[in-house]
Amino acid sequence: MTFENYKQIRDRSESLCTHLETEDFVIQAAEHVSPAKWHLAHTSWFFETFVLKKFLPDYNEFHPDFSFFFNSYYNAVGERTARNHRGLMTRPTIEEVFDYRGYIDEQMRGVFDNQFSDEVDEIITLGLNHEQQHQELLITDLKYNLWLNPLLPSVLNIKEYPNQSERGWLKIKEDIYPIGHEGDGFCFDNELGSHKVYLDDFIISSNLVTNQEYQEFIESGGYRNPDYWHSDGWSWVISDDIKAPLYWLAKEDKVFYYTLDGLKELDPNAPVSHISFYEAAAFAEWSGYRLPTEFEWEVASNKFSWGDRWEWTNSAYLPYPKFEKAPGAIGEYNGKFMVNQMVLRGASVATSPGHSRNTYRNFFHPHYRWQFTGIRLCKR
Amino acid sequence: MTFENYKQIRDRSESLCTHLETEDFVIQAAEHVSPAKWHLAHTSWFFETFVLKKFLPDYNEFHPDFSFFFNSYYNAVGERTARNHRGLMTRPTIEEVFDYRGYIDEQMRGVFDNQFSDEVDEIITLGLNHEQQHQELLITDLKYNLWLNPLLPSVLNIKEYPNQSERGWLKIKEDIYPIGHEGDGFCFDNELGSHKVYLDDFIISSNLVTNQEYQEFIESGGYRNPDYWHSDGWSWVISDDIKAPLYWLAKEDKVFYYTLDGLKELDPNAPVSHISFYEAAAFAEWSGYRLPTEFEWEVASNKFSWGDRWEWTNSAYLPYPKFEKAPGAIGEYNGKFMVNQMVLRGASVATSPGHSRNTYRNFFHPHYRWQFTGIRLCKR
Amino acid sequence: MTFENYKQIRDRSESLCTHLETEDFVIQAAEHVSPAKWHLAHTSWFFETFVLKKFLPDYNEFHPDFSFFFNSYYNAVGERTARNHRGLMTRPTIEEVFDYRGYIDEQMRGVFDNQFSDEVDEIITLGLNHEQQHQELLITDLKYNLWLNPLLPSVLNIKEYPNQSERGWLKIKEDIYPIGHEGDGFCFDNELGSHKVYLDDFIISSNLVTNQEYQEFIESGGYRNPDYWHSDGWSWVISDDIKAPLYWLAKEDKVFYYTLDGLKELDPNAPVSHISFYEAAAFAEWSGYRLPTEFEWEVASNKFSWGDRWEWTNSAYLPYPKFEKAPGAIGEYNGKFMVNQMVLRGASVATSPGHSRNTYRNFFHPHYRWQFTGIRLCKR
Amino acid sequence: MTFENYKQIRDRSESLCTHLETEDFVIQAAEHVSPAKWHLAHTSWFFETFVLKKFLPDYNEFHPDFSFFFNSYYNAVGERTARNHRGLMTRPTIEEVFDYRGYIDEQMRGVFDNQFSDEVDEIITLGLNHEQQHQELLITDLKYNLWLNPLLPSVLNIKEYPNQSERGWLKIKEDIYPIGHEGDGFCFDNELGSHKVYLDDFIISSNLVTNQEYQEFIESGGYRNPDYWHSDGWSWVISDDIKAPLYWLAKEDKVFYYTLDGLKELDPNAPVSHISFYEAAAFAEWSGYRLPTEFEWEVASNKFSWGDRWEWTNSAYLPYPKFEKAPGAIGEYNGKFMVNQMVLRGASVATSPGHSRNTYRNFFHPHYRWQFTGIRLCKR
Repeated sequence: MTFENYKQIRDRSESLCTHLETEDFVIQAAEHVSPAKWHLAHTSWFFETFVLKKFLPDYNEFHPDFSFFFNSYYNAVGERTARNHRGLMTRPTIEEVFDYRGYIDEQMRGVFDNQFSDEVDEIITLGLNHEQQHQELLITDLKYNLWLNPLLPSVLNIKEYPNQSERGWLKIKEDIYPIGHEGDGFCFDNELGSHKVYLDDFIISSNLVTNQEYQEFIESGGYRNPDYWHSDGWSWVISDDIKAPLYWLAKEDKVFYYTLDGLKELDPNAPVSHISFYEAAAFAEWSGYRLPTEFEWEVASNKFSWGDRWEWTNSAYLPYPKFEKAPGAIGEYNGKFMVNQMVLRGASVATSPGHSRNTYRNFFHPHYRWQFTGIRLCKR
Repeated sequence: MTFENYKQIRDRSESLCTHLETEDFVIQAAEHVSPAKWHLAHTSWFFETFVLKKFLPDYNEFHPDFSFFFNSYYNAVGERTARNHRGLMTRPTIEEVFDYRGYIDEQMRGVFDNQFSDEVDEIITLGLNHEQQHQELLITDLKYNLWLNPLLPSVLNIKEYPNQSERGWLKIKEDIYPIGHEGDGFCFDNELGSHKVYLDDFIISSNLVTNQEYQEFIESGGYRNPDYWHSDGWSWVISDDIKAPLYWLAKEDKVFYYTLDGLKELDPNAPVSHISFYEAAAFAEWSGYRLPTEFEWEVASNKFSWGDRWEWTNSAYLPYPKFEKAPGAIGEYNGKFMVNQMVLRGASVATSPGHSRNTYRNFFHPHYRWQFTGIRLCKR
Repeated sequence: MTFENYKQIRDRSESLCTHLETEDFVIQAAEHVSPAKWHLAHTSWFFETFVLKKFLPDYNEFHPDFSFFFNSYYNAVGERTARNHRGLMTRPTIEEVFDYRGYIDEQMRGVFDNQFSDEVDEIITLGLNHEQQHQELLITDLKYNLWLNPLLPSVLNIKEYPNQSERGWLKIKEDIYPIGHEGDGFCFDNELGSHKVYLDDFIISSNLVTNQEYQEFIESGGYRNPDYWHSDGWSWVISDDIKAPLYWLAKEDKVFYYTLDGLKELDPNAPVSHISFYEAAAFAEWSGYRLPTEFEWEVASNKFSWGDRWEWTNSAYLPYPKFEKAPGAIGEYNGKFMVNQMVLRGASVATSPGHSRNTYRNFFHPHYRWQFTGIRLCKR
Repeated sequence: MTFENYKQIRDRSESLCTHLETEDFVIQAAEHVSPAKWHLAHTSWFFETFVLKKFLPDYNEFHPDFSFFFNSYYNAVGERTARNHRGLMTRPTIEEVFDYRGYIDEQMRGVFDNQFSDEVDEIITLGLNHEQQHQELLITDLKYNLWLNPLLPSVLNIKEYPNQSERGWLKIKEDIYPIGHEGDGFCFDNELGSHKVYLDDFIISSNLVTNQEYQEFIESGGYRNPDYWHSDGWSWVISDDIKAPLYWLAKEDKVFYYTLDGLKELDPNAPVSHISFYEAAAFAEWSGYRLPTEFEWEVASNKFSWGDRWEWTNSAYLPYPKFEKAPGAIGEYNGKFMVNQMVLRGASVATSPGHSRNTYRNFFHPHYRWQFTGIRLCKR
């Protein structure tokens, strides 16, 4: 780990914001998203709290209130801004937040200038992976925040319409398979450790469900027939009046789709995106297939290409047999979310370069749609 | 299957209501519970809809509106009373509902008087298991419905304080185990079919967590420390101001507990009851143990005694590898609930005699507490 | 005041319930209505609390918990059942409530057997007027409670389609007029005392707006044009999806109306009923007229016939210049409601005989519709 | 009316924002407040929509979407941004909004350069009074928006602690008094026209209730005793957990108060501010006095000094006898709010210079507190 590695990842956060106006950094359109400003500051808070304050002798805090402002971890590291108030914090300004980032990076250079222990190396690595996760959230939150503006601003081009190959069906044989992460590379605690899972025979699609296929589901009445839906999913369809994926906009007989690069016509061949688990499962039911489990996905993943959409699996997010909570604040990270969420595997067009691996376990509540989520079909 | 078998199970539903006043049959204290009257009628509707109307020639419907009133299945079998309006249906009266039951039983005798196919036998068996499930709900809903009445009425004695053995720790060895139901006896679709699961070594408690142990958790600040809780669990503790299991009542330095037989002092040696999954998991975390998975539970279940409390497992309710949805209305039964719910294994003091088996998969959303739920500890 | 007077009014409460089933007495379909059982008990609680306990030596309370159960007055007379839990109180049973009524009446006979002071006479008179108010609520709450039952039960005939005279316009001259109650007869504290109000010239209709006129308003788009509505009224129309008066039911090109005597075709000549203040004001705006103030209504009331519908006025419910709060619990009665409510004048087909006078000030929040409310037009 | 008059009022809007950061212009902390940016734009939209587009030949709209963005009038002038989304409109930026203001002023100069009709003069006058109203809202909304920020920024000094004179009691004699606005000066439609009101004798305080007096109310248990409160007020105290006026902050045994110039110790002699009608009425009840009606206030207003706090009256906001709705969009202005709101009289430290008069009728729903509201006592 060198300061250049560190700085390259840190700089990417700022480069995502090149085309933002000052105002764009401020807002929070719903409790589950955060302002761009918050992501930029919170990722710096991580290095200040877990590296600089602990390991840099005589470190001077940038500002006494920032710890309160930009903490997202309840309890173990003190108080924090109420999650739904993040969009009201006009001060510190975005300029001050960039100053904060600059200050942290400068101080971190001091850490790198000296030799440091493996422990520090591990925390810095964790901090950089944490920053990459927030880079993806910064992108997806930005899309959600700007979507309600009738001007539908264009601020970032991340190629939201990737190419798709033809569909093929891959066969996997019944066997005991090793699941989970092993080896020296970085991984999160929820991927550890390698363990055995028994799988039956199954086939899995080599590509993702396309917008055109999803439109067929819609046109055949998919959103009006409870038979395809989980009970909780159907309640959600009714209460939220859901009729199409997020960011779809029908205008004069055409369907458009809001990308961070502005409104575009829907590309029929691109993989469908911004669907909830409920929609993914309903589509699978309608199509006569099913969603893979996360274990099936991991075992098959070397046989297909992935990385354009986070792929909903039919696995609930639960601890692996050898999972152990790390002590202290960093340990808050993953275990406390292991109920009510579904696992997504793969990566998306918004994922930071170098951040993906086939043991990675992403997870969201089943009704959320603001990530770049997609569908891969499977069958016994 | 004889009419006597049928009638014995049917009669038990009514015998549970011996001490109810007419008024007690009517109310519904929350959307997730139903009036006693509704359970008595809905279980009869099942036989009318799926047996009598289909297989008894010239069957005359008891009342043209009952199908609407007492249907709980959306879509496939037509319209139904809004779930949260069940407690407003003063008509038909309870007397009419008992007449309905009598009429259905009389007509069912006609079915039994003739020979019938295996298909009919299967549906009747399903109907009786369905009735037994509603007997347990009738009991637990009744408790919830009467609990808000300051008179805390006594209406039923089901021995809510069963004896508990001493704690021992049972060891299970790493291996591939068969999971799920096999053989000729009745089971629900979600238990089928037998499949292999790989388990690591673990130990599991021979008894359940007691009220006294749970009080220690409370007294040590268990409800005030987010470290023990899932993130969603902690939100629930805060928003619902949770401080103890359901039905606990502190009066003048003593803790009482509402049973269907009236208010009693809390028995320290009885297994704790009426806790949510969040509470079960938080207790386990606090104690240094964890909850078993449903697979661990099933494999170990022959080595301990069970049946007093539904035991929360750390398994989400998901389809088994060979799960298939049955076609038609009866198929609605289980698959559509396979998201957002946690599996409970075992049975409880409210479960109907003869209704239990160690492959049975019960399931509830993780915040619910009105069932007789308990905690069994486990560890790697 | 004789016991016979007392008993005649008390008996009417029970006579309204002749055709109710036990179950009908229990339910509460919304927080703003109460179960029939509650009205029967609460009116008895009034005599027990304010007469028997205070003025009958050696009075024995009927049941120690009834005070808690049937109190509606917060604070000054102790705790009470949460308002939205009244429909969950299955015990005491309706039979016990009738016993309670019998016991109270028997004890009250004891009061009448002796001479009593003017103070006691005043409280008994207040208690009987209070009972008459609850008789009207018993009727209107019953209608609301039974309305959600698809059987639309018939339980009471109160002639909901009264005859209407032809419309005429009455002229009132500008002047100073006395407003409020004077003299020896009973009145509520909010009608006291007579005071002067300056009125300009106005004309007022001799009859009420009919169903047919109201249908014209609907057909001309009245519920879709915000121009006719107050801002708060329009929000209510949108959020509650209001399209017609309460209890209207369109079936196969005809409009029906639920009466307590069952579903009937809408009578075009009957005065419109069950409309909110917002609807009354929007209708008036659409028609080019306005609602009278309560002062205009009172001054003109000797010139027209009234008593079929409570007539919404454009006066907010506020204290008269000489209004003073009575000390103690009975004083809670009227003053604390003097904000956010609109005054209704007259009486309705559900009002108890002998309970009306032209100084009577009824009041409800502007969105409520479950009373027999109507519209009288007016203009400068 | 000259362009200089016009420009002077318009410039004041911008001068209020001198110390704001770009971020401060964006946010909206609750649905009932608006972002500073929105006020600056909406007031310009008024001149564009009602003057420039109608009366300036060949006028070119500044931007085709601004009409949608900055319209607050539903229906009559087309679609508009959802009220609770105003804080999400990052684009147009504040810089563009200032450009918009500049453009409108430049175009308005064109209007003034030519002679114009009385109609145009009236609309410009209305537009300037409208702008002054929004200047006050800009101030009070800003305070509300910044209040949740733990930095409690200082952005404006408007002397929130005005001097108070000693209390005296002024006597007004029973009589018929003229109420309402007459003469040539500008007034809003709700003040027209002069009409007669009969008043009884009363006395009224020469000064406002102070912070110190209000603290006595709090210390004597004012927020814990329902006797002092309207029923709706008490529900509000309980549901919103109200214990003190808005913007009060207790720290280490001292009470502080957030002003737009930063946090200050509470000045005991300053008039209490930021209280709801419910609190004003409860204080009056506790003190043994009452709030004046708006008529009493108007008649007495020449005998005392006013203008520091908007004074809650006990009058509901209702039309005067001669009130008539102006046709078209401008007519939406006042009539549609005439239900559920209470009248405030006077003016406050946030009111624009030259905008006050003693016939002015301000109005808010009774639970709102973000205006500079105060209490004047009165008695029969």
